[in-house]
Amino acid sequence: MTEQIVSLDVSDVRFPTSRELDGSDAMNPEPDYSATYVTIRTGGGAEGHGLAFTIGRGNEVQAAAVAALRPLVVGRSVAELLADPGAFHRTLVGDGQLRWLGPAKGVIHMAAAAVDNALWDLAGRLAGKPVWRLLAEMSPEQLVSLVDFRYLRDALTPEEALDILRGAAPGRAERTERLLEHGYPAYTTTPGWLGYTDEKLVRLAKEAVADGFRQIKLKVGADAEADRRRLALAREAVGPDIRIAIDANQAWGVAEAIDWLRPLTPFDPYWIEEPTSPDDILGHAAIRRAVAPIRVATGEHCQNQVMFKQLLQAGAIDVLQLDASRVAGVTENVAILLLAARFGVPVCPHAGGVGLCEMVQHLAMFDYVAVSGTTENRVIEYVDHLHEHFTAPVTVRNGHYRAPLTPGLGAELHPESIAAHRYPDGPVWRELS
Amino acid sequence: MTEQIVSLDVSDVRFPTSRELDGSDAMNPEPDYSATYVTIRTGGGAEGHGLAFTIGRGNEVQAAAVAALRPLVVGRSVAELLADPGAFHRTLVGDGQLRWLGPAKGVIHMAAAAVDNALWDLAGRLAGKPVWRLLAEMSPEQLVSLVDFRYLRDALTPEEALDILRGAAPGRAERTERLLEHGYPAYTTTPGWLGYTDEKLVRLAKEAVADGFRQIKLKVGADAEADRRRLALAREAVGPDIRIAIDANQAWGVAEAIDWLRPLTPFDPYWIEEPTSPDDILGHAAIRRAVAPIRVATGEHCQNQVMFKQLLQAGAIDVLQLDASRVAGVTENVAILLLAARFGVPVCPHAGGVGLCEMVQHLAMFDYVAVSGTTENRVIEYVDHLHEHFTAPVTVRNGHYRAPLTPGLGAELHPESIAAHRYPDGPVWRELS
Repeated sequence: MTEQIVSLDVSDVRFPTSRELDGSDAMNPEPDYSATYVTIRTGGGAEGHGLAFTIGRGNEVQAAAVAALRPLVVGRSVAELLADPGAFHRTLVGDGQLRWLGPAKGVIHMAAAAVDNALWDLAGRLAGKPVWRLLAEMSPEQLVSLVDFRYLRDALTPEEALDILRGAAPGRAERTERLLEHGYPAYTTTPGWLGYTDEKLVRLAKEAVADGFRQIKLKVGADAEADRRRLALAREAVGPDIRIAIDANQAWGVAEAIDWLRPLTPFDPYWIEEPTSPDDILGHAAIRRAVAPIRVATGEHCQNQVMFKQLLQAGAIDVLQLDASRVAGVTENVAILLLAARFGVPVCPHAGGVGLCEMVQHLAMFDYVAVSGTTENRVIEYVDHLHEHFTAPVTVRNGHYRAPLTPGLGAELHPESIAAHRYPDGPVWRELS
Repeated sequence: MTEQIVSLDVSDVRFPTSRELDGSDAMNPEPDYSATYVTIRTGGGAEGHGLAFTIGRGNEVQAAAVAALRPLVVGRSVAELLADPGAFHRTLVGDGQLRWLGPAKGVIHMAAAAVDNALWDLAGRLAGKPVWRLLAEMSPEQLVSLVDFRYLRDALTPEEALDILRGAAPGRAERTERLLEHGYPAYTTTPGWLGYTDEKLVRLAKEAVADGFRQIKLKVGADAEADRRRLALAREAVGPDIRIAIDANQAWGVAEAIDWLRPLTPFDPYWIEEPTSPDDILGHAAIRRAVAPIRVATGEHCQNQVMFKQLLQAGAIDVLQLDASRVAGVTENVAILLLAARFGVPVCPHAGGVGLCEMVQHLAMFDYVAVSGTTENRVIEYVDHLHEHFTAPVTVRNGHYRAPLTPGLGAELHPESIAAHRYPDGPVWRELS
């Protein structure tokens, strides 16, 4: 079989979300949720779709980075890529000149994410399986071959990774059935954006509980007094049994985080997310020691597996929030799931944005079936926003993600949505300008 | 005064260095040394030049990122920018949408470096001073106002920074005189590129000592047996009193670094540079504990001040190697110099590349005059390469950088060099294609 990847197209797609203050938080006051959208095509006409999520300005820089990766993809044999996605991934993040732009972080790494995700989407479509199932049916040896252990061995060896996967193998079939029947637990961030009024917060919090969610999340970090008031209102609205996570989006320094959280403790926040710089491993560890029993969560801005490794080694986090397109795609996320399992830390993926819910559900479900083997204390973020633009949007029922059955990774946008929101020339943007 | 910044131009300039294997190392086998070159102009006709250094492919992505910063610069009042460069720097790295691309790391942060460096160049030209002197004549309070302490306070408070600067203030005039007379110690990497033959290594090592250098550096990490042979040859060539640093350019995992270094110890390497991932703070700390008395050095790929803070907090490094355009320019480097002084760790800047020698000399000299107050165990890297393209190239005599007297930061390229090496349309590249 000599079929090749014949094209890689990239589009700058932006949704003007800043007009409604959906997605507003302490550090990102006016995001325009955006996607650097990638389509790869094979000579036989098959397609794979992937994306990197950004929040507006700079999405064109992200698109330029994807274009810089094109020569590493176009012309490659499809059979070869699918036979050894780990080797392909190492060429994608290891190019001798492009790696200077990271290495393995920021714009160039998110570009690798979009391409890697598109390749997994293609793999799922060719196999006729959703990616969670494609991964969950790979052998432990195949899965371990995806991981670049160069900088991980002091925390996770190939042998340890194999042991984890082999230990989970006997229960795969049973957990797959349970997943298909019950879905995977979700939590919702919809009530808690900073830009919302108290009345809207309370109304949406009650609706979330009525809809079956057992956890909600509130944005904090802009105004200490308002945070106390909003958290008190939310706790009153949902009662003592619903978990309320709070999210500071990196607003604080270490001591500031600790001081800010103290008056919130009586309202029993379940976790504090991104209390400080996503780069501050030692800072997260110090905050965690000081604010227990509030759990510390981070990950949506965690740049790569080396940083996740250290967050785990340092005992800095209670909850690991992987992201579909911050690290370099499905392949690197398999390594991160194995690291989390090695340290016994639950993974609760970051989602929302554009297409993140669609993609991360595959990672969490694969984790349940074939890695950690449990959904205990694990939830996937859910935001009810922009799903209508996807050809296979997520389905959330009674607070659970239904397991997707459509082949691929779920990141395919409707052609009309792309055309309408293309930046700067799509009609939505021409009308705004 | 209402004079404004009226333009920000960016050029993709590349030198075809891969043809000679100058700059070859374990992770970057064939670099084409490149610059994302920035010129800002004022309404009055003054100019500032800055650059971000890359190694070839992807320099166009870097240029796109600089262009994304243009709206934050053009139209700003020159007087306002120069009165509070710290405030400008925070807008440059804190844009509510662009920061998603980092935050504060990779392509978008190096773009901020190029712009920040151009602004300091402009400031120096308007003041008629080289930037080292401009900085060294600012008050402790002005210097502290440059620093963004949000994520630093657990390691360095504004009061501690003020104490460091006030402590060094009485000796500024005397050290300035000594600097102008004697220059600042340099070391050379010219002998040690991986692509060079043994004969060339020995010859260049001897020439370096004859030229007055007291330290040289060898690249290692591709072949353990070759490293042992080359280090033995170099030690024999220079004798026991010359320091030989070695540089692995991130080639190893933690245990691998320790194993690889053991057989090299008899040849007394002074420091091991970049033994592992630049992101692996805990890994550097573990290596340092294991390989003493070999010192551990890193920094050229250290993404920002939060990472440097942790390298210092964790006791992970003996030598801090700041870079002119990896972190966000002169402004962030002032913070890094203060952090290093707070922890008593010597700063030995990374240089070479394109214009890095020209820029970092200002930082090291400012450090000597106004921060650490010493050159003990401090050296600036020197590579004799590409300086002819700059209007005010560095001068190195008898193993010392002469203090530059030309106003500005030194990153201005000759217009003919830009025209010849513009990618992909300059004549040098048209001939190669």
